[in-house]
Amino acid sequence: MGDPAGIGPEVVLKALESREIKETKARFIIIGDRKVLKKNSQLLSINLPAQAEVLDLANINYHFRMAKVDRRLGKAVLEYIKEGVRLAQEKRIDALVTAPISKEAINLAGYRYAGHTQLLAELTQTKDVRMLFSSPVLKVVLLTTHLPLKEVSKLITAQGVYKTIVLAAKFMHRYFAGEERIGVAGFNPHAGEEGLFGEEEREIKKGIFRAQQEGVKVDGPFPADTLFYQAYKGRYKLVVAIYHDQGLIPFKLLSFRKGVNISLGLPIIRTSPCHGTAFDIAGQGVADPDSMIEAIKMALYLSQRC
Amino acid sequence: MGDPAGIGPEVVLKALESREIKETKARFIIIGDRKVLKKNSQLLSINLPAQAEVLDLANINYHFRMAKVDRRLGKAVLEYIKEGVRLAQEKRIDALVTAPISKEAINLAGYRYAGHTQLLAELTQTKDVRMLFSSPVLKVVLLTTHLPLKEVSKLITAQGVYKTIVLAAKFMHRYFAGEERIGVAGFNPHAGEEGLFGEEEREIKKGIFRAQQEGVKVDGPFPADTLFYQAYKGRYKLVVAIYHDQGLIPFKLLSFRKGVNISLGLPIIRTSPCHGTAFDIAGQGVADPDSMIEAIKMALYLSQRC
Repeated sequence: MGDPAGIGPEVVLKALESREIKETKARFIIIGDRKVLKKNSQLLSINLPAQAEVLDLANINYHFRMAKVDRRLGKAVLEYIKEGVRLAQEKRIDALVTAPISKEAINLAGYRYAGHTQLLAELTQTKDVRMLFSSPVLKVVLLTTHLPLKEVSKLITAQGVYKTIVLAAKFMHRYFAGEERIGVAGFNPHAGEEGLFGEEEREIKKGIFRAQQEGVKVDGPFPADTLFYQAYKGRYKLVVAIYHDQGLIPFKLLSFRKGVNISLGLPIIRTSPCHGTAFDIAGQGVADPDSMIEAIKMALYLSQRC
Repeated sequence: MGDPAGIGPEVVLKALESREIKETKARFIIIGDRKVLKKNSQLLSINLPAQAEVLDLANINYHFRMAKVDRRLGKAVLEYIKEGVRLAQEKRIDALVTAPISKEAINLAGYRYAGHTQLLAELTQTKDVRMLFSSPVLKVVLLTTHLPLKEVSKLITAQGVYKTIVLAAKFMHRYFAGEERIGVAGFNPHAGEEGLFGEEEREIKKGIFRAQQEGVKVDGPFPADTLFYQAYKGRYKLVVAIYHDQGLIPFKLLSFRKGVNISLGLPIIRTSPCHGTAFDIAGQGVADPDSMIEAIKMALYLSQRC
């Protein structure tokens, strides 16, 4: 359900009421607080969806303000996620779709982490996870995510690049067979132009080589500004980006409303919309459920191919 | 004319023969070598254009191979550029359009520099120049250009950001009045998320503030992945990017064939196409002159508003 003060509950209800999701005939469990969902359903004039069961963790028996960071809500949200992971690991659900949470609220609740994906990795005791952003136009996997850009350089290792490529290739092979054309971006302008503008490409090259030796169809490192254009034109179906903005600038440009986040490497299927809690519009009933609809559809697609 | 072994002479001839450029009735001087132009005109079956005069520097009286880095050609190209700058400074031409050159050839000729723009800055004794990339959809100005990404962090100063904004704002005011909406990108993911992922945004903020104090319409720093989407949707007409790929990934995605490079800060008007020498297709007659055509049209547009 995501943070009750954000647009999470709203887009969950809107998505489950959409024609696209109703048509799927899938069954849903909304993990969260019934009170919050009821309030949202009144506000939005949407019935609680018939094909969904509410798993009421009944954490919230107090008044809270919309669009505000709230330590108590951070704590509640952690409970939702833990419960979701538990249900997925016990195979009582086929996939977990997460709604946006407030990092600040979670931090105030005493849990310091840099992102949803990292939290899920910890809860499932997974070492290597990667974020994949998916849309019909482009798929992007990130080598590194939420850290200062100046610290990325020292995290670029052949092993890390290799692992990322292998996770991406396995995913493509399993779920998008026939589309396993992977391009890897360089780190520096012009991919370093033969060492003229930086050395990180040497590690990237080694990682690519190791994957190629194992038969993975992957090329690079390429200058990022031309690689994403080539990918957009269909030459690559998936791009490995070295840092957050390198992947997300082109991804959001090409797929803003339809983007889906998928976790690679977890023992469970997990997707989420690409947007955040959107406190600037929370509680106004104007949030766009498109990305949540896509996240749910992707979770269904992936779980039917397991 | 650009490097004789690249696609420069070819796109110059093709552009000058295009309906779009002929219609302008402008007069052109091609600065280069007549022999090279003749060879290209035979190869392409294009006459040397009637409205163009060839300024034959007669540097090349030897055989050279297409698509090869050649020290002698690097030397010749430097002469073309110096002559072009001289003519522009003496007001014998209104604007200079440069065709692609080979950085390697120039370096072999004994001149180490990181880009065309830097060379022009030196020749015109200009301290502050910036690269602007322009297309109908988006304009991007770069704070930093051709250097290792890990070194960008320490070059981010309030003064540099301020200068970049002011150069961009003056340009927009003079040539694109009414479109002076400038957004500045952050450096880190999520623009640092309030210092959680990096500190560079503090300097960027100071630079923006100083420009705002002088009445410049500018906002930021914003997370780059959402800023470029907002710019694409029309909210900003020009984006100040902090590093090369941050600006060029979205620019090339949105404007691949129609992009034009403009130098900000020089005492002369100078434009160029966004592509390089394209040795992979040089001499085959298949080079696309679109970006050169746009560069010439932009040079005309700018010189008519001086």
